[in-house]
Amino acid sequence: MTKQELITQIQQKKSFLCIGLDVDLTKIPKHLQNHDDPIFEFNKQIIDATHHLAVAYKPNIAFYEAYGIKGWSALKKTIDYINRNYPEIFTIADAKRGDIGNTSTRYAKAFFEDLNFNSVTAAPYMGADSIEPFLAFKNKFTILLALTSNKGALDFQGLKTTRGDELYKEVIKTSLTWKNSENLMFVIGATKAAYFKTIRAIIPNHFLLVPGVGAQGGSLKEVCQYGLTKDCGLLVNSSRGIIYAGTDQNFALNAQKEALKLQQEMEIILNENN
Amino acid sequence: MTKQELITQIQQKKSFLCIGLDVDLTKIPKHLQNHDDPIFEFNKQIIDATHHLAVAYKPNIAFYEAYGIKGWSALKKTIDYINRNYPEIFTIADAKRGDIGNTSTRYAKAFFEDLNFNSVTAAPYMGADSIEPFLAFKNKFTILLALTSNKGALDFQGLKTTRGDELYKEVIKTSLTWKNSENLMFVIGATKAAYFKTIRAIIPNHFLLVPGVGAQGGSLKEVCQYGLTKDCGLLVNSSRGIIYAGTDQNFALNAQKEALKLQQEMEIILNENN
Repeated sequence: MTKQELITQIQQKKSFLCIGLDVDLTKIPKHLQNHDDPIFEFNKQIIDATHHLAVAYKPNIAFYEAYGIKGWSALKKTIDYINRNYPEIFTIADAKRGDIGNTSTRYAKAFFEDLNFNSVTAAPYMGADSIEPFLAFKNKFTILLALTSNKGALDFQGLKTTRGDELYKEVIKTSLTWKNSENLMFVIGATKAAYFKTIRAIIPNHFLLVPGVGAQGGSLKEVCQYGLTKDCGLLVNSSRGIIYAGTDQNFALNAQKEALKLQQEMEIILNENN
Repeated sequence: MTKQELITQIQQKKSFLCIGLDVDLTKIPKHLQNHDDPIFEFNKQIIDATHHLAVAYKPNIAFYEAYGIKGWSALKKTIDYINRNYPEIFTIADAKRGDIGNTSTRYAKAFFEDLNFNSVTAAPYMGADSIEPFLAFKNKFTILLALTSNKGALDFQGLKTTRGDELYKEVIKTSLTWKNSENLMFVIGATKAAYFKTIRAIIPNHFLLVPGVGAQGGSLKEVCQYGLTKDCGLLVNSSRGIIYAGTDQNFALNAQKEALKLQQEMEIILNENN
């Protein structure tokens, strides 16, 4: 998918909602538990009920790996289902990978080719040659961890270097010098809405994937105040707040209601901004 | 496995060799290509030929994920084979994972419980709450990326912070304050043998996993000069130099010969040191 196709989708749906498919078998409705593939069935129903309100789905790979081959199979069925039925949707493998050069190429192939995701999240600690293999894939996006939304985020990301910037800014600035850096997007946690202004001064146009709205306490309005660009430039993720909105036969309908609330907030914000 | 059991194995085998099982289908002998599960068959023969010379095996998970469900299945068969036949061997899932708290718990379960590895490698960028979920598992080890052996390693790991240390030292020092930090080991690249002295001043006793000897140019002697502790404290990895030593029917025997060379060097070094 091209960046322009993502932007067009955002304009058509009046939404920049990403739904996190972090499926925990202990949290899905009881009536699905005896299904052949409860994880996939849960995802399928959530996707069918919300695809017109969301522009992206983001399975966190940990939730699938935790179930071994069964989980990996459910992940493959899920991404295949999205690609076949809703090809306009932007798909994100939230994998936070990063390894030595030729090994990163392996991960890139796993997510971009074998599974056919549009994008993958990656961790910057190992530097240029751990990320450039991902960036080499055309019309695929690498979403680099910059400022995350967890409690320990600032343990290292917040360390100021002798060059004058905190590590997360060094990561963003340095990554812009890498080959094919136009294929970069960045993870910026919404619990730090105040940081968006500084970040937009460094990367005025790159898309930001924003977790932490809702369950983790971030405010959509604050994020948009500083984070929005003329092309939107934001993908705001909600996982638990949507997919576990209901616990019975109506779980997909409840998820749809929660997604609709966020989409409507987003529509107002987008209208206000152009 | 306890740390003492690993030390005992090192003493018995006079070896601290770790063999990296980074299996690339395009590099394994032709006669295995038509096998039902060529990845597992390759691993099985390498393991049978080298288990008395090595104390650890380290599959890099990227190589398995790249083959999707087939790869994941080969990984599971490989770890099950080691655990069943050579339970004294220390197993390392080289996964370089790290995610938000409850998601890291998922990864920890995937590698420590579902697959039953003794240890997993993890990336520090997201801070304390991304690693502590791994450390909570008893008699399992979390091998934290500190100083890696790739070209771009110093892009961020080498940045000096205003506290006075380079990032990789900050990572090591900070990680020692985390809950269950006795379950930590560290990845320290052998291409930087000169750094081992400084690192041992911070962590005199922790085990270090050292990639980069052989194919990547690191010297075993230099690493040992500063890196060895009274309990050895080192696991030195070689991947390609061993597993691709041969390309025909004799590949496992050739791998054994290369492993034996390293084990013999290690035996001399261990004897010299106590």
